[in-house]
Amino acid sequence: MNTFGKIFRLTSFGESHGRGIGGIIDGCPAGIELDIDLIQKDLARRKPGQSKITTQRKEPDHVEFLSGVFEGKTQGTPIAFAIWNRDQHSKDYNDLKDVFRPSHADYTYTKKYGTRDHRGGGRSSARETIARVVAGAIAKQILAKVGVQIQAYVSQVGEIKLPKSYKELNLALTEENIVRCPDQEYAEKMIARIEEAGRNHDTVGGLITGVATGVPVGWGEPVFNKLHADLGFAMLGINAVKGFEYGSGFDGTKLSGSEHNDIFVKTEDGVKTKTNHSGGIQGGISNGEDVYFNVAFKPIATLLKEQQTIDKNENDITINPKGRHDPCVLPRAVPIVEAMAALVLVDHYLLSKLNTI
Amino acid sequence: MNTFGKIFRLTSFGESHGRGIGGIIDGCPAGIELDIDLIQKDLARRKPGQSKITTQRKEPDHVEFLSGVFEGKTQGTPIAFAIWNRDQHSKDYNDLKDVFRPSHADYTYTKKYGTRDHRGGGRSSARETIARVVAGAIAKQILAKVGVQIQAYVSQVGEIKLPKSYKELNLALTEENIVRCPDQEYAEKMIARIEEAGRNHDTVGGLITGVATGVPVGWGEPVFNKLHADLGFAMLGINAVKGFEYGSGFDGTKLSGSEHNDIFVKTEDGVKTKTNHSGGIQGGISNGEDVYFNVAFKPIATLLKEQQTIDKNENDITINPKGRHDPCVLPRAVPIVEAMAALVLVDHYLLSKLNTI
Amino acid sequence: MNTFGKIFRLTSFGESHGRGIGGIIDGCPAGIELDIDLIQKDLARRKPGQSKITTQRKEPDHVEFLSGVFEGKTQGTPIAFAIWNRDQHSKDYNDLKDVFRPSHADYTYTKKYGTRDHRGGGRSSARETIARVVAGAIAKQILAKVGVQIQAYVSQVGEIKLPKSYKELNLALTEENIVRCPDQEYAEKMIARIEEAGRNHDTVGGLITGVATGVPVGWGEPVFNKLHADLGFAMLGINAVKGFEYGSGFDGTKLSGSEHNDIFVKTEDGVKTKTNHSGGIQGGISNGEDVYFNVAFKPIATLLKEQQTIDKNENDITINPKGRHDPCVLPRAVPIVEAMAALVLVDHYLLSKLNTI
Amino acid sequence: MNTFGKIFRLTSFGESHGRGIGGIIDGCPAGIELDIDLIQKDLARRKPGQSKITTQRKEPDHVEFLSGVFEGKTQGTPIAFAIWNRDQHSKDYNDLKDVFRPSHADYTYTKKYGTRDHRGGGRSSARETIARVVAGAIAKQILAKVGVQIQAYVSQVGEIKLPKSYKELNLALTEENIVRCPDQEYAEKMIARIEEAGRNHDTVGGLITGVATGVPVGWGEPVFNKLHADLGFAMLGINAVKGFEYGSGFDGTKLSGSEHNDIFVKTEDGVKTKTNHSGGIQGGISNGEDVYFNVAFKPIATLLKEQQTIDKNENDITINPKGRHDPCVLPRAVPIVEAMAALVLVDHYLLSKLNTI
Repeated sequence: MNTFGKIFRLTSFGESHGRGIGGIIDGCPAGIELDIDLIQKDLARRKPGQSKITTQRKEPDHVEFLSGVFEGKTQGTPIAFAIWNRDQHSKDYNDLKDVFRPSHADYTYTKKYGTRDHRGGGRSSARETIARVVAGAIAKQILAKVGVQIQAYVSQVGEIKLPKSYKELNLALTEENIVRCPDQEYAEKMIARIEEAGRNHDTVGGLITGVATGVPVGWGEPVFNKLHADLGFAMLGINAVKGFEYGSGFDGTKLSGSEHNDIFVKTEDGVKTKTNHSGGIQGGISNGEDVYFNVAFKPIATLLKEQQTIDKNENDITINPKGRHDPCVLPRAVPIVEAMAALVLVDHYLLSKLNTI
Repeated sequence: MNTFGKIFRLTSFGESHGRGIGGIIDGCPAGIELDIDLIQKDLARRKPGQSKITTQRKEPDHVEFLSGVFEGKTQGTPIAFAIWNRDQHSKDYNDLKDVFRPSHADYTYTKKYGTRDHRGGGRSSARETIARVVAGAIAKQILAKVGVQIQAYVSQVGEIKLPKSYKELNLALTEENIVRCPDQEYAEKMIARIEEAGRNHDTVGGLITGVATGVPVGWGEPVFNKLHADLGFAMLGINAVKGFEYGSGFDGTKLSGSEHNDIFVKTEDGVKTKTNHSGGIQGGISNGEDVYFNVAFKPIATLLKEQQTIDKNENDITINPKGRHDPCVLPRAVPIVEAMAALVLVDHYLLSKLNTI
Repeated sequence: MNTFGKIFRLTSFGESHGRGIGGIIDGCPAGIELDIDLIQKDLARRKPGQSKITTQRKEPDHVEFLSGVFEGKTQGTPIAFAIWNRDQHSKDYNDLKDVFRPSHADYTYTKKYGTRDHRGGGRSSARETIARVVAGAIAKQILAKVGVQIQAYVSQVGEIKLPKSYKELNLALTEENIVRCPDQEYAEKMIARIEEAGRNHDTVGGLITGVATGVPVGWGEPVFNKLHADLGFAMLGINAVKGFEYGSGFDGTKLSGSEHNDIFVKTEDGVKTKTNHSGGIQGGISNGEDVYFNVAFKPIATLLKEQQTIDKNENDITINPKGRHDPCVLPRAVPIVEAMAALVLVDHYLLSKLNTI
Repeated sequence: MNTFGKIFRLTSFGESHGRGIGGIIDGCPAGIELDIDLIQKDLARRKPGQSKITTQRKEPDHVEFLSGVFEGKTQGTPIAFAIWNRDQHSKDYNDLKDVFRPSHADYTYTKKYGTRDHRGGGRSSARETIARVVAGAIAKQILAKVGVQIQAYVSQVGEIKLPKSYKELNLALTEENIVRCPDQEYAEKMIARIEEAGRNHDTVGGLITGVATGVPVGWGEPVFNKLHADLGFAMLGINAVKGFEYGSGFDGTKLSGSEHNDIFVKTEDGVKTKTNHSGGIQGGISNGEDVYFNVAFKPIATLLKEQQTIDKNENDITINPKGRHDPCVLPRAVPIVEAMAALVLVDHYLLSKLNTI
């Protein structure tokens, strides 16, 4: 169950402190000229140590392609790749070998499999998402050829919530600050909030908003694999995610139908809707409007402070973890959200070739 | 893309005004004695015409099994079933043949497939969910054998939100009123709110909360198919759903890590957590606590009032639909939420047999 | 595991003496105008009672479409269909309820599932293949639109083997006789051989040869899903099949490489090969030449004569089955072979749309 | 389409002259202690340069595990592995860059994908099967724990055919000679035949027989995924394979039903059959007898002699390949046949856990 996608399929592998993280992309069309710089750029947006509000671990996170690319082009054959692990302090984790940290996967992995790689969280580490960022960066390049752009940004940190919708923001400014919020004023508040959490040896959660523009009418499968169901599935598969909503989302539950319905209008650019509570998706299928959604991240569970828990013999124990950890995952999760959205969209782009003969 | 599940797989078929709705369940273990009454009971909870706050269409929704059950027991072979359509007023829809109703799937289906069955929404009708209720009712019977119970209820209608958590409610009271809210006081407010919407020829949305008890430790696949990702995918595939959250959900984003972490404690009943912000799932794998989640439903798009829209030639047109429709889908969606949760859980129950040899 | 195909997927259901046999086709492109007569024609070629050399059971085998077809056209939605069972003599099987007939599936089903529907073989009956004939007949109609034709014929019955290759035969004559061998002289010998087997209350096996013309270059996936691997998988899934070979097949093992290699030549019709030992497939991918293959059928196991066996308590028992059975399945299996080939080819046709963007 | 298996899934990657060959095994149960020596032993049986009758290329073919194994045990997480390429003479292939060699995949790959890695056959090289040997060697270790053993051997080279069935041979002698035929007399004839082909710069095909003992009753899915259909699919996916038969196979078509049926008898060891024309599989499900089958390999297409063909501009051209190639693949294909059989069987072992609850 480590494969994502139906046509463009990523199978991911790797543990935090093993040989490396990587994957195989199967089903990528042939003849795509890959821009490796764009892939590295997304890896750099995800990597630790990139700013004062992220963990200070240094990992170069350089992707090596092992197959499927020849003379710069995809071959239609499986694209294997790896990011070799470095800067591992595996011994940091020796103390945690037999401990079940609160709200981590230590307990559930051990009970499920009867064994676990305790070093740095093993397979449950968010470091696994590197494989998704690589595959997503390739998916983005294919999508760009058909006019689809994906942009995510941090819209909430703790209780600090950006009051503007994506329509009121200049998303091109997202990379202008280290928290990846396109509104400078709120970005500063968020950064301060993260720094405060860090000083308290605590952590803080928040929201990431994702937007896909240029999605044509007709992507999405109408029953189980509604476009938003596949997007939600993708986002909920990211570490620390607790919720997903698209279009009007949870707030839309409070509108009446006559407020919520998006009226079709004919424009010079073709059929449009006056409002977009639908989030660009109707009946599970894209309608040509912007697709937008929110992803809720909990405060991560790794705290650099004393906590009560149990060990594998079910004895009470107190832990006081040391090490280098993020007080807030959101800035580094922005490229992951984009990557997962790209994987879903490229899949539905390819599926849409099969609607008719 | 009309198949749901990995091991216990439902493939659904049918349109609102075609011959019927049904499906094939493949991968159901052999030797399960089926209680048909329990299946019909869930169909009755979903069926139209069941109370004053639902559409007055009368459909018996009687399931006929076509294969896979012999002498009352599942055979390990595919279980096909159908609910034949009745009481269809297909002509009601003749006026809508060439119209793209706002926030419906008319436009997107037509653009995707170049054709659509316009009668009663065709495949996009929520009547398709009957197939899920049948399969889910079978899944529930299997889950009951391993001690898992699933219960959903309406926790919000429009702006009327039940202030209590599921822990503070007696879920056994859910079926005591027509809105399926286990708190009688709020149930009455919700019913009044739905009646108001009906009088206005308008519609209203809300929330359904789902709870699964008795889920043992170790269900869920840790990377893409996290237990909550599969649950979210299942819920987002239900008509009119706009969002999903589990455990602390969107509100959890505002807590600090030290508030959010669930501390493990040893009890007479084994390992437990003091709080359950995790919603019974850690690292994508169940931890033995209750699994709970919220599903956001938009107000449905079919309004019995005049609305502006376009037709298939992209001309402006005014529609004023007649017919028999629900002002609020939530009461009838409760068994659908339960069914989809059961399909996810039975799949992970079966998958968990493969963790070790 | 009752689904066949990757894009164009048939999920089959039904038992010999249950309510009926049918299936759901998911992934069929929209907008295909279905010729129902062509589907019925293939069903008639498969149905019992069609000639003096087949079982005298009479079953009309009329297909009813339950969904997915509207105004004569496929809708992109699942196409469910059923052939309702008739003329069942279920009581004929009461004596066999607790018996494990030799070389049948009685023993293995019972051990696998702990239960079985003993009536007429239940799910293991070749009657299940009706669903494949229906789906295959639809696949053929799609393939015809892209110039692909599939024709199978009986090339061996018992030791009577047609000495000519398909190239030396007029395949249009296949339906001219009841054994479906396009060579009249050999057809008569085969018919006599089958009649002899029938008189002896015995059965006889043989070969069916299949040929697909018009397959363009580029269908087939090069590693596991080689075009011939998918064809072989399809054929080996037909009841009573014991072997599959394509192109030069088993005889090709005796040639040297210099004899076996197919030399490319440039012709007015494009690139061709001088010989076609490759059977139209190189590296798992079609090369534009005819695809041809042989399918080996054992003599079926149901004999109308006394035989020694055991019952479910593992006691020795003598059975002497009565009833109406085929002495040779091959004439009726011809449309099944064609159907399975069509399902494989239509799948690879659709997959080939995804090679490049 | 580079994934094999349903539960125990191998996704393979790599080209002959790229960075390496490898794969990801997903769905391997946790807690299996891996014997790496056994894996290397099978790689050694497949590797080039192992004897005078194989190519003289030297490749160490050492497997490196990249994930999923911790402290010697499988973790339930994806097992990624690679065999890094060495001793590549990529320039040997420069002359072939624009040439379509006869009966190779050069032409079909190029037409399918619009591009190909011409070096050493790229992805179409049989070197890809290394990944299968590694995964198969792991599958064998799991199967051994449940008493299943798989052994293959060369039973025919060119026209030299071993006249004994596997029952009359001591399969433990298979590795005693370089051609992997357990009958010393025939082994010598086969070796001489291969040497003759080598001297003629030609190639020769043949048969490999595979036998699985200890398979319990109840493995196999009865309709499309019959145990033999999955075996046939697996074998036909090996490079150069042209046919597959199991049990009585093609010869069985000439027997009458009364000769072919396998009579059940009660023995001290439980239910057995007197004969085993069924090849251990009835109705697609194993019956507890030995599973045995034949795989037909064509003479490989790479000849070290002058041949006529065309280039990518469709011009006539004469090629005269040099290099180091096998005159006969069969001795080295024995572990590949075993590996593919092991992958099928381990999958059905795992699936069989799902028959009942």
